[in-house]
Amino acid sequence: MAGSTIGTNFKITTWGESHGSGIGVVIDGCPAGLSLCEEDIQTYLNRRKPGQSAFSTPRKEDDAVHILSGVFEGRTTGTPISLIVVNENQHSKDYREIASYYRPGHADFTFDAKYGFRDYRGGGRSSGRETIGRVAAGAVAAKILKELGIEILTYSKSIGPITIDETRFDAAEITKNPLYMPDADAAAKAASYLEECKAMQNSAGGIIECVITGVPAGIGDPVFEKIDANLAKAIFSIGAVKGFEIGDGFAVAAATGLTNNDAFVTDENGSVTKETNHAGGILGGMSDGSPIVFRAAIKPTPSIASTQKTINKNGEEIEINIKGRHDPIIVPRAVVVVESMAAITIFDAMLSNMSARMDGIKDFYQK
Amino acid sequence: MAGSTIGTNFKITTWGESHGSGIGVVIDGCPAGLSLCEEDIQTYLNRRKPGQSAFSTPRKEDDAVHILSGVFEGRTTGTPISLIVVNENQHSKDYREIASYYRPGHADFTFDAKYGFRDYRGGGRSSGRETIGRVAAGAVAAKILKELGIEILTYSKSIGPITIDETRFDAAEITKNPLYMPDADAAAKAASYLEECKAMQNSAGGIIECVITGVPAGIGDPVFEKIDANLAKAIFSIGAVKGFEIGDGFAVAAATGLTNNDAFVTDENGSVTKETNHAGGILGGMSDGSPIVFRAAIKPTPSIASTQKTINKNGEEIEINIKGRHDPIIVPRAVVVVESMAAITIFDAMLSNMSARMDGIKDFYQK
Amino acid sequence: MAGSTIGTNFKITTWGESHGSGIGVVIDGCPAGLSLCEEDIQTYLNRRKPGQSAFSTPRKEDDAVHILSGVFEGRTTGTPISLIVVNENQHSKDYREIASYYRPGHADFTFDAKYGFRDYRGGGRSSGRETIGRVAAGAVAAKILKELGIEILTYSKSIGPITIDETRFDAAEITKNPLYMPDADAAAKAASYLEECKAMQNSAGGIIECVITGVPAGIGDPVFEKIDANLAKAIFSIGAVKGFEIGDGFAVAAATGLTNNDAFVTDENGSVTKETNHAGGILGGMSDGSPIVFRAAIKPTPSIASTQKTINKNGEEIEINIKGRHDPIIVPRAVVVVESMAAITIFDAMLSNMSARMDGIKDFYQK
Amino acid sequence: MAGSTIGTNFKITTWGESHGSGIGVVIDGCPAGLSLCEEDIQTYLNRRKPGQSAFSTPRKEDDAVHILSGVFEGRTTGTPISLIVVNENQHSKDYREIASYYRPGHADFTFDAKYGFRDYRGGGRSSGRETIGRVAAGAVAAKILKELGIEILTYSKSIGPITIDETRFDAAEITKNPLYMPDADAAAKAASYLEECKAMQNSAGGIIECVITGVPAGIGDPVFEKIDANLAKAIFSIGAVKGFEIGDGFAVAAATGLTNNDAFVTDENGSVTKETNHAGGILGGMSDGSPIVFRAAIKPTPSIASTQKTINKNGEEIEINIKGRHDPIIVPRAVVVVESMAAITIFDAMLSNMSARMDGIKDFYQK
Repeated sequence: MAGSTIGTNFKITTWGESHGSGIGVVIDGCPAGLSLCEEDIQTYLNRRKPGQSAFSTPRKEDDAVHILSGVFEGRTTGTPISLIVVNENQHSKDYREIASYYRPGHADFTFDAKYGFRDYRGGGRSSGRETIGRVAAGAVAAKILKELGIEILTYSKSIGPITIDETRFDAAEITKNPLYMPDADAAAKAASYLEECKAMQNSAGGIIECVITGVPAGIGDPVFEKIDANLAKAIFSIGAVKGFEIGDGFAVAAATGLTNNDAFVTDENGSVTKETNHAGGILGGMSDGSPIVFRAAIKPTPSIASTQKTINKNGEEIEINIKGRHDPIIVPRAVVVVESMAAITIFDAMLSNMSARMDGIKDFYQK
Repeated sequence: MAGSTIGTNFKITTWGESHGSGIGVVIDGCPAGLSLCEEDIQTYLNRRKPGQSAFSTPRKEDDAVHILSGVFEGRTTGTPISLIVVNENQHSKDYREIASYYRPGHADFTFDAKYGFRDYRGGGRSSGRETIGRVAAGAVAAKILKELGIEILTYSKSIGPITIDETRFDAAEITKNPLYMPDADAAAKAASYLEECKAMQNSAGGIIECVITGVPAGIGDPVFEKIDANLAKAIFSIGAVKGFEIGDGFAVAAATGLTNNDAFVTDENGSVTKETNHAGGILGGMSDGSPIVFRAAIKPTPSIASTQKTINKNGEEIEINIKGRHDPIIVPRAVVVVESMAAITIFDAMLSNMSARMDGIKDFYQK
Repeated sequence: MAGSTIGTNFKITTWGESHGSGIGVVIDGCPAGLSLCEEDIQTYLNRRKPGQSAFSTPRKEDDAVHILSGVFEGRTTGTPISLIVVNENQHSKDYREIASYYRPGHADFTFDAKYGFRDYRGGGRSSGRETIGRVAAGAVAAKILKELGIEILTYSKSIGPITIDETRFDAAEITKNPLYMPDADAAAKAASYLEECKAMQNSAGGIIECVITGVPAGIGDPVFEKIDANLAKAIFSIGAVKGFEIGDGFAVAAATGLTNNDAFVTDENGSVTKETNHAGGILGGMSDGSPIVFRAAIKPTPSIASTQKTINKNGEEIEINIKGRHDPIIVPRAVVVVESMAAITIFDAMLSNMSARMDGIKDFYQK
Repeated sequence: MAGSTIGTNFKITTWGESHGSGIGVVIDGCPAGLSLCEEDIQTYLNRRKPGQSAFSTPRKEDDAVHILSGVFEGRTTGTPISLIVVNENQHSKDYREIASYYRPGHADFTFDAKYGFRDYRGGGRSSGRETIGRVAAGAVAAKILKELGIEILTYSKSIGPITIDETRFDAAEITKNPLYMPDADAAAKAASYLEECKAMQNSAGGIIECVITGVPAGIGDPVFEKIDANLAKAIFSIGAVKGFEIGDGFAVAAATGLTNNDAFVTDENGSVTKETNHAGGILGGMSDGSPIVFRAAIKPTPSIASTQKTINKNGEEIEINIKGRHDPIIVPRAVVVVESMAAITIFDAMLSNMSARMDGIKDFYQK
């Protein structure tokens, strides 16, 4: 099946395996006239690069991006933008052993079940490296959104059992600690927790939160193309995500109508706003002008050095110790991946929204 | 934008408003040769009909379905199946008042923001009645899945703060109580809680759980068309959903690799299985043969009779009391909607999967 | 497979068989705020109704359309517009015989090959009645285009061997003769030719031409979504079409670069135009501002009363005489179907085009 | 808009400009387990390489393809196959002049109209080099089709006014003359004609015919996804195509039902076949088991050295002489492009067809 494309009017197609020649993405539907250079994209890619802290794999990957098409004299032309990152530093021999068995928590078994065999080197297509294409495309979408007045703030809300204290929330702190937490104190505790995990050859999960401000009201659709539904799909398409929620999320189950409804009010400029934002900025599948707030639950890295039970391809039960250099936690590097998928989804919905009203269409064509 | 179609090879398009002529769905891509009659669909629709307990709106709606096309001599022909439920019992006058203001927790404001005006009668396109089309299509998908050996069990896991006790889980109980809870004791407590809510002119939320058994391993895709990503979208496209999780879901954030990884083992027949199912039956976006388990958080009904603050279309702050007959809780009636969207999503993924391997394609065409 | 939907942002889904309950279409993505009533659609449908001349089947079909959703207080709401025409005057018994054999030139055999069986009544899904859904949707698209200053003129260019004389072209004549020819003289000759065909229990084909004026330059796309490519698909999706050409069409094969290239010039207003229009208004897949001109070749009605050779479902060679009331020529009734598919295609391309440029997007969102 | 992807289950996305870094394609949905190497693809690409005869541009382009992903140990893995051809031999300076005016018959003006500016080097995205991606993907599709017993024969039927004589048709001749004509005599006359065109700084068009044998009956769909409709779109998406016809094509207009209908008969093996093939192997949008036969009309190369009239970007009328090395005819090099788009379209339809029947689905999943 064809499963590597997402989006309707702003459409991205990723390709590449962990240990193939490279990783890339084709962005189709990027509007013409956007100023764009490799540095715009590299900045985003650098946020997911490994080797930047004690809590990510010590593998060194430069991940330098090249623009192969779609940009002319510094501006996008409206035709497909092809981006590539050449793979380097591949140690395929590290992975030869895992060809023979199924790693718990990985896609080894399901790949074999679906396709009959698999590229076993470094997770193949299911490698975290696949997200390079997403982040490269996300950088472009985020740049466009910024020109439209939309900002995205993404950070680690929890690392293992350590959650930020909302009262100490400091956006400026996010890029100051290697865990991308907006609370220095929580970041310090989380670092200690991760040191313990590493010492025990274990790994940790966490929760990423994303806040999008500046989205005009009315973006999205009332039925299947709800903006929250598309965000849910986009975020759940990231490898390790096991949960997604908007606004108060799972907490709404125990709330009541009286506590959960957000009263509409007018702000000082006479604009419509809401007194609270339990809804997370979306009502009936469409943005309501308040910040869009969502969270994603990320599972602990499945690759751990501890002894684990599994079976080999002959169905024999065996014990394994996964070698190689693995992140004890995925969360900090996944922050920019979540942000990227959010940017792509929001911009695509904004393009679709341009055809919502006859008056808007007439204005567009008759000016 | 065109947002009322979902699916790739098994594609459904819903139409209709709460107080229009009717509600319907076109199912395109249903395979030929399925035995199908209106009763097959009506059984599903009856599970979402109102007026069946003290906890759903006393409105009486027959919701009788008619098959308009795609079935000949009792079997599907492979061409589009058009299904319609004619709207009756419409009291549009009840809704005239709400035309002038924005109900908290509803899509009134976002509809106006997007489209410039709205069909204000009974929520228009955002009405719960839109789900009739989904359930009608879900009945067809579920019937096909059953023929392929796949069963779906869906129930209320929580009603407000009352959660089922897993040790008392009894599937047979689900249809015995009006709340579709698989734990008679929890159902009784939940009923009391809902009585309180009603007495206070308030409403409640809850959590729906869905367990799908019999899905062969390998269904889904490793990248954007992950089966969990498509389930997330399908479930989040249901009006009141604010959270979605697979397997251990948000609990993975505080788990470790050692506790969260599921060891592969072989069962008595030599088939691959897992010792535990923290993953919820999906690894790397593809089914692993274990039951697929997911949960959806449903917000409290936003329509409550209590006095609420909001603004009218002139931006003036007002107080309102929503009239009409509303469910104090959506959860029990949403159970079959969740099940329907799950059935549609799983079957569509199974169709896509048929093109995964050259040997499968050759077998198909050369026998 | 799901094959009854066409379009990206303006998407239509047709359903229904010749002798089922009815025929319908769901239009998804129609912008909000268009004034629309049943009469707007009926006018178009009446142009394809049978029984209007000696050259169409004497079957009487009222084909009255009903709007079931998507219109509120006389204006489209932006949600799906469901349209239905109830089938009447069905004589299924006429068709019982054809269940047992394969009519030459019809889809009987291919239906059986694909689906294993078929709804044999009146051609089932392959009936010309399926086009009712297309024409109903086309009426909506054409109304929108008209508001955007775009007009479509469609007519019969040839009927059998009789072709219009360009020097006598008179648009006003088109609706004055039952063959929709813009040349009264040719229409008279064609009528005589058709009388001969009828007398010989034979049928005729023809060529339909369509001229679209007012489409702004730049609509379409340079690669797969060329506007001519989408027109080709849309027109070829009409049952009896066997050829499609743009501008000079097949004549370009024998032309030279010097004769075929259209020189750019400026008109009296300083606007860019072309001295000639061999290109038919499209260059590189995008409209160039000149009239878009295309032609479709329509095959002779395959249902003829003359004795024909074929085989039955047992593979035995037999001779048949097709009973029933059939059009001796499809062309005149197909004129409005061609026009409808053109309108749908052009409008969909115009919606996609709104996202072509950053400056257009900024203007849209920042005014 | 996103217009560089085509296909549903077998989906290709092309990218790249004439004078950018390279040209490429991502094939998504290629089944796993196909044996594939660069040579398989290079063979196809070599058929469209320039510089192979007196009638194609003397530019030397190696067009060596590299497989960047999706193939492991010599077999496709089921994940996206990324193919790239690096651009060499670029003389951008040749094209600087054309930045200031609109070449007749080219997309210069429409690009500016749509996007506001353009990559003017060598036609940018509208260059014939874009078809490299199509041919690379077509080689993969054709290899799969061959394994399924399907062969495609494509050739020049006409070059300018010279058409092959059917009685001298010799498939073996096609690769023996530089014009890919299956008639040595016609090829010789066509060569003389082209010499004249070159001498007069003029160019020629022609007609390409394609015959596909071995397609099982029932592939395609009765409504919008007719296999002829998708072929029409795919072929019309090739730059210079101005006409497309199936079977007897435009000749059906003057035919009658009696002459145009193909009688069904049984062949020596008792299989259903047709006595004639006016239909070109497709009835009601679905293959009927006979050879699928279509033709495409290709316009004369618009780049000619003769003096032409046009306007510059200021709207001033000027005279130009296009420099550079251009093919006096596109037809011979377009033969493999047509074949590629046909292969892609047929295979995609075959994948969709796998979900047509319940019994087929059950067989697939229950064996």
